Amino acid sequence: MAPRPIAIIAGVGPGTGASVARRFAKAYPVILLARGTDKFEKLAQEINDAGGKAVGISADVSSAESLTSAFKQIEKEFPGASAAAAVFNAAGGFVRKPFLEVTEDEFRGGWEVSQKGAFLFSQQALPLLLAHAKDPSATHPPTLIFTGATAGVKANARMATFASSNFAKRAIAISLAKEFGPEGVHVAWANIDGPIDIPGRDDYRKHLPAEQKIDPDDIAEAYWGLHAQSRRAFTNEIDIRTSVEKW
Amino acid sequence: MAPRPIAIIAGVGPGTGASVARRFAKAYPVILLARGTDKFEKLAQEINDAGGKAVGISADVSSAESLTSAFKQIEKEFPGASAAAAVFNAAGGFVRKPFLEVTEDEFRGGWEVSQKGAFLFSQQALPLLLAHAKDPSATHPPTLIFTGATAGVKANARMATFASSNFAKRAIAISLAKEFGPEGVHVAWANIDGPIDIPGRDDYRKHLPAEQKIDPDDIAEAYWGLHAQSRRAFTNEIDIRTSVEKW
Amino acid sequence: MAPRPIAIIAGVGPGTGASVARRFAKAYPVILLARGTDKFEKLAQEINDAGGKAVGISADVSSAESLTSAFKQIEKEFPGASAAAAVFNAAGGFVRKPFLEVTEDEFRGGWEVSQKGAFLFSQQALPLLLAHAKDPSATHPPTLIFTGATAGVKANARMATFASSNFAKRAIAISLAKEFGPEGVHVAWANIDGPIDIPGRDDYRKHLPAEQKIDPDDIAEAYWGLHAQSRRAFTNEIDIRTSVEKW
Amino acid sequence: MAPRPIAIIAGVGPGTGASVARRFAKAYPVILLARGTDKFEKLAQEINDAGGKAVGISADVSSAESLTSAFKQIEKEFPGASAAAAVFNAAGGFVRKPFLEVTEDEFRGGWEVSQKGAFLFSQQALPLLLAHAKDPSATHPPTLIFTGATAGVKANARMATFASSNFAKRAIAISLAKEFGPEGVHVAWANIDGPIDIPGRDDYRKHLPAEQKIDPDDIAEAYWGLHAQSRRAFTNEIDIRTSVEKW
Repeated sequence: MAPRPIAIIAGVGPGTGASVARRFAKAYPVILLARGTDKFEKLAQEINDAGGKAVGISADVSSAESLTSAFKQIEKEFPGASAAAAVFNAAGGFVRKPFLEVTEDEFRGGWEVSQKGAFLFSQQALPLLLAHAKDPSATHPPTLIFTGATAGVKANARMATFASSNFAKRAIAISLAKEFGPEGVHVAWANIDGPIDIPGRDDYRKHLPAEQKIDPDDIAEAYWGLHAQSRRAFTNEIDIRTSVEKW
Repeated sequence: MAPRPIAIIAGVGPGTGASVARRFAKAYPVILLARGTDKFEKLAQEINDAGGKAVGISADVSSAESLTSAFKQIEKEFPGASAAAAVFNAAGGFVRKPFLEVTEDEFRGGWEVSQKGAFLFSQQALPLLLAHAKDPSATHPPTLIFTGATAGVKANARMATFASSNFAKRAIAISLAKEFGPEGVHVAWANIDGPIDIPGRDDYRKHLPAEQKIDPDDIAEAYWGLHAQSRRAFTNEIDIRTSVEKW
Repeated sequence: MAPRPIAIIAGVGPGTGASVARRFAKAYPVILLARGTDKFEKLAQEINDAGGKAVGISADVSSAESLTSAFKQIEKEFPGASAAAAVFNAAGGFVRKPFLEVTEDEFRGGWEVSQKGAFLFSQQALPLLLAHAKDPSATHPPTLIFTGATAGVKANARMATFASSNFAKRAIAISLAKEFGPEGVHVAWANIDGPIDIPGRDDYRKHLPAEQKIDPDDIAEAYWGLHAQSRRAFTNEIDIRTSVEKW
Repeated sequence: MAPRPIAIIAGVGPGTGASVARRFAKAYPVILLARGTDKFEKLAQEINDAGGKAVGISADVSSAESLTSAFKQIEKEFPGASAAAAVFNAAGGFVRKPFLEVTEDEFRGGWEVSQKGAFLFSQQALPLLLAHAKDPSATHPPTLIFTGATAGVKANARMATFASSNFAKRAIAISLAKEFGPEGVHVAWANIDGPIDIPGRDDYRKHLPAEQKIDPDDIAEAYWGLHAQSRRAFTNEIDIRTSVEKW
């Protein structure tokens, strides 16, 4: 019998990442990847206390070495396990300022995380997803989901850094969907269009009415819905926004 | 107490319409609209036999008079009921031939059903959906879903008739999503990208392997997933295709 | 020797239509189509006085009969002439109001002109354009241009009528571009994104600064640029907006 | 009196770059940027022999240091000159192979040239373009054009590297168009959709019939057409393909 399949979440923070981890932990052991252990320690504890199984691993998605090491640890913790789901929830390069004031380092920030990160993470996760596609005991087709933003389809003024890396991330998702769909891996890109209601965030969003902020638990539910789709009805792109969002 | 809310499916045939009706009948009485009674009689029987509630009504979506009469009948059968869901599943004008050979009547066929039908049906259904948005006992936000096709985003050669009416249908869906979202109605457009596995269909699709054909039950499940979304996480556009579809 | 080729402009008013007519009249006799003779009489006079050749013909683009009669008159005036260019500049159904207040007649207005008009005009013009594609003495490939609006790519709230008919018009343009490109006819859709500086218009646009309004002569120049493209470098979609437009 | 404005072409090879250089040299002194001097020496000679003015400068667009040095040399050769046009014609990362076989270096190749290159070049060129926007003797608004490919709007299987960097390049172009349009700089992205007829190229494209290959001189003409547009009618995106291209 195949070992129990796992779900891997890259970019776990207090918002979407945590909600997705909790949702997928109802069905699978979850691996929580983030740079700092503070990002996942409490969450792992919470999931384990609730009867789920969560393992947090420090990893920098923009580093091949770091990711390789993280996936080795995954293999050590869950030997032979395939991946039922992998979610790339990391993003970098959010810079909103006059283009001529953007530094090369700032611009590179978008590339490092949103693009190179998406590339490196996909290369590590896809073999485990492909293995799951061949597992006759799999409940659902393996799913690789990329969390995107409106900046992946709309490039606004003063947003060249974030928009370019998000456009690129979306291109990666679509290309992988076409390449790996026939092999049974469901790849999807999600346009999270609007502010997310992240607990503890202390910026302008804190004071927005709840109805103007996307509930990360609802994002997680949508991701689970994608995961539960059959091979005969894959959704490869979805948008998610509140009912009052302008777009 | 508010009367039990209903779901209205326009364009019920053996494929998507029937599957959607069966799925929504698990939660709501369903109204089945189609031009010919042969389209819904057996299905209504089947749903009623299975413990659900289904009422078939003959209606031509391209006729304001016919639709008005159908909605009067709905009010008579379910007095004061709001609509939890309305699905516009009708399409017309599938014509694939040299543009110079398309007749005005053929071209008009796309308009009559896909566009004017979408317009007229939405005008009838929206008041019932808006009523549902104000019903504090509603389980989910009211949902208006338009079944679309790839021709709604891609206009191929020799397909001007079908493509133009599908582009138009999508525009209606998006415009309504923006207008009625803030009032609590969830409007979505679904790009059904590929052949559907319709029982009894006797054309080239009959002999395609099942994995190349979208399962209408899976479309229905995706529609239900849209319906179950909260106001803080609406999806307004989805694509649905098999894992092996080229796109 | 082939008779001198002509250019046909449908939807001639004081703005884009007049500018396009003047521009193409530098190279070809121009046919001016509009419903009312007041739309083209002065313009035809002006062009003829300036040494060009212009013929105005009353025609309703939404009527097959009217268009057939107009094209018969064209054949009578310019026997055997092919069409170097045909521009569909008509639009209908500009309605901005709550969806539930739109009447069926208003909604139909968009269809009649923007869609059925585009269909009927294309069917009449294409044979003349195809004839030009076979004329070895042709200076440029024959060109069929559709004037569109942002509503052809973006469906805003309260704009379902205009958006749906513009989406549809764009679909027609793209489908024809794909079907007739290989036969040598250059089909293009132009997204005119913003208010046009139309002489004599007395509404809110009158008082906008000139820099916020698109110059119709510049649109005409862009259309001529499309016409002058070689078969080895067709542009099938362009957007045109002022430098200060938000989009 | 202001010094004579210049045009700067980055990524000069035997195809589009050379054609664009020749076309803009009819109006402006042209700067030819390429990594190897062999890319521009003959071309500069040819333009200078024909009575134009061309200066070739070795530069690596992916290196801030190299580009800074190149623009210093430009200032030295043409002190105080503003830029009437800047064309970013460089692209990297054309890799078509199974995703799991793409190396990090290959993937990075797309980023380095198409994205970081576009970023660095734009930061150097924009101040010269902005200066031109303020020059009352300017003939046309300053123009910044990015040469793109279909991969900028369509992400195919096995093309994640090229598609992601082209999507990103397009995002940069659109964001800059919105930011700098109001300041009078015309930014445009060109989707060159199909094989280009590049002299001397010895691959599968060599044997394609000419009609299936885009003529780079026609691309250059289209770029000039963009440059010649007035501030009241900017085109920010164009597609260019042969009449027989499928899309």
